[in-house]
This record gives sequence, structure tokens and C-alpha cells, in this order.
Amino acid sequence: MYGYAMDKEDLQARLARIAGQVRGLQRMVDEDKYCIDILTQLNASTAALKAVGVGLLDAHVRHCVRQSIERGEGDAEIEELVATVARFVGR
Amino acid sequence: MYGYAMDKEDLQARLARIAGQVRGLQRMVDEDKYCIDILTQLNASTAALKAVGVGLLDAHVRHCVRQSIERGEGDAEIEELVATVARFVGR
Amino acid sequence: MYGYAMDKEDLQARLARIAGQVRGLQRMVDEDKYCIDILTQLNASTAALKAVGVGLLDAHVRHCVRQSIERGEGDAEIEELVATVARFVGR
Amino acid sequence: MYGYAMDKEDLQARLARIAGQVRGLQRMVDEDKYCIDILTQLNASTAALKAVGVGLLDAHVRHCVRQSIERGEGDAEIEELVATVARFVGR
Repeated sequence: MYGYAMDKEDLQARLARIAGQVRGLQRMVDEDKYCIDILTQLNASTAALKAVGVGLLDAHVRHCVRQSIERGEGDAEIEELVATVARFVGR
Repeated sequence: MYGYAMDKEDLQARLARIAGQVRGLQRMVDEDKYCIDILTQLNASTAALKAVGVGLLDAHVRHCVRQSIERGEGDAEIEELVATVARFVGR
Repeated sequence: MYGYAMDKEDLQARLARIAGQVRGLQRMVDEDKYCIDILTQLNASTAALKAVGVGLLDAHVRHCVRQSIERGEGDAEIEELVATVARFVGR
Repeated sequence: MYGYAMDKEDLQARLARIAGQVRGLQRMVDEDKYCIDILTQLNASTAALKAVGVGLLDAHVRHCVRQSIERGEGDAEIEELVATVARFVGR
């Protein structure tokens, strides 16, 4: 597997780690930790979620989009893919 | 309270909801749901985390940064604030 | 053409508008306009650039990536595409 | 000056460079350059705009927001600041 590829096990491990980070955020707010420290942890969670998103996108293009193009279709899948990237990018 | 202000209870409620969203993501990956649907849910979690971040930033400026400026200080707090926003913005 | 598709003329028109926005930013800084107003204009330029990016991505997937998959290739193009989206998303 | 601070001259120099990058984008589209190369250049322009935004935000907090707090005011400025950061962050 190259850089962005993630298998199901990898995705699950990353999501479990993100779930732990969110519990950490809940604990930090509960204990009135310093805002900037909470924000640093929050940024880490957002970055980790984005990385999972890129991994999902990668799997989606390599399987679903590729297969529908190979079947001579793909227009709807490409349109859906681009719309998803647009929302992901924050347009 | 105005638009972006969040008290501790509000922050906790939002983080609890985000924890639930992440559990939802774990379930969706486990059940091999359609990538695009998982990505939509993931985008919602990222947006919810960002909203909490803005709420924390708001509390931080209204309390910590304001108080240190009122004490005739504030340089270090402003520098730290801007550095945090810079990382948050993804620079 | 659907939502995100842009032809060359459309891309050029959007880039010309962005060039005008950047000149507007230069003028605003020159005239010491209120920071928040400059930031609002700057946000508009960033959003416009992102929209062009999505349009380019759309064209790229519909032509280059599709064609290479149709030729029975596509691995390198998909990897490059995902890496580009990853940088675009700010991971 | 520390990390994110920019004086007017620095802001102008950065905006002039961004204007040049946008002209470069126009030329690349005109010459039908490879989409991914245009996207790489576009990403550089977006990052450069964001950096200018952080510099403007820095100047704004160090001057306008600080001064209004020192005058015993600041509520409206803090609310405006947070709303601007929220839009900047893409919430």
C-alpha cells in the first residue's frame, strides 16, 4: 500500500484513536484545562479525522469510481466524488 | 450570550455529540457502508469540532486575553492566540 | 455542464476576477482600511481560489483520470489525485 | 517583530507576490498546463493568502482589540474578531 491507502483495520484503529482524543477533550473541558491546550488537542483530532477522510476517498476512487469507469459508466460517480471533495475542502 | 459563546455545559454537550458521531463512524466502517456516506458523516464531525474550537477561542479571548491586557500585559497571550489561530486555519 | 464543471473560458473569467480581488486587497492595505474589512475581502479571494481548484479537479478526474483508467491503467493517476486532494484539504 | 507580525511593507510585498502567482495561474490555464501542476500553484496562492490573513489578524488584535480593551470596552471588537476567525476557519 502507498501513502494514503488505508485498509479497514487501519481505519478502525485510527477511529478508535480519535474516539480516545475526543474523550480526552471531554476530560480537559471537565477539568478546566487551559483553552489553548484544549485547542491544540482539538486540532490534532481534526487533522486525524481529515486523514481518515483522505483514506476513505482513496479507497473510494480506487474501487468504486475505477470500477464504474471500467464498466463504461462513471459520470455519476465522478460528479458525486467532486461534490464530496468540494464539501471536504470547505467550499 | 451571543453567537459563538459557549459555556462549559454547552461545550460538554457538543463534545458528547461528537463522541457519538465518532462511534457512528466506527459502526459505518464496521458495516462497510458506502464511502461517500461515511465521508458526509466525517465532515459533520469535523465541522462540529471546529465549532467547539471557535467557542473555546471565544472564551479564551473574552477571559484570559482580555484580563492580561487589562493588567497591562497581554503580549505573550496575543502572540499565543495568533499562533493558535494560525494552526487552526491550517497555515 | 453540471455544478462543478468549468470550461477554460469560465476558469479564465474566475481567475481574472480573483486578480481583481487581489488588486483590491493591495489598495485596501495601501489606504489603511479596517483590518476586518480586508480580511472579509481576503476570505472571498480564498473561497474563489478554492472554487477554481475544485473546477480544475473536476476537469482532471473527468478527463485525465478517466482516460487512464479506460486504457487499463490509472494507478499512478489515482495516487497523484489523492495526494493532491490531501494537500488541498490541508492535511 | 515575532513570527506572525507583518508591517504594511511586508503585507504589500506578500500581496504583490500573490498577484504574480495569480497571473501565473492565468498563464498556466491559457497554455493548457497539466491540471495537477496548476492545482499545486493554486494551493501555494491559497496558503500565501491565509498567511496574509493571519498577519492582518495579528495586527488587528495587537492594535484595535488591545486598545479598545484598554479603554474599558472591547466586547464588540472581541465578538467581531471571533466571528471573523470563524469565517476564516471555514465554519
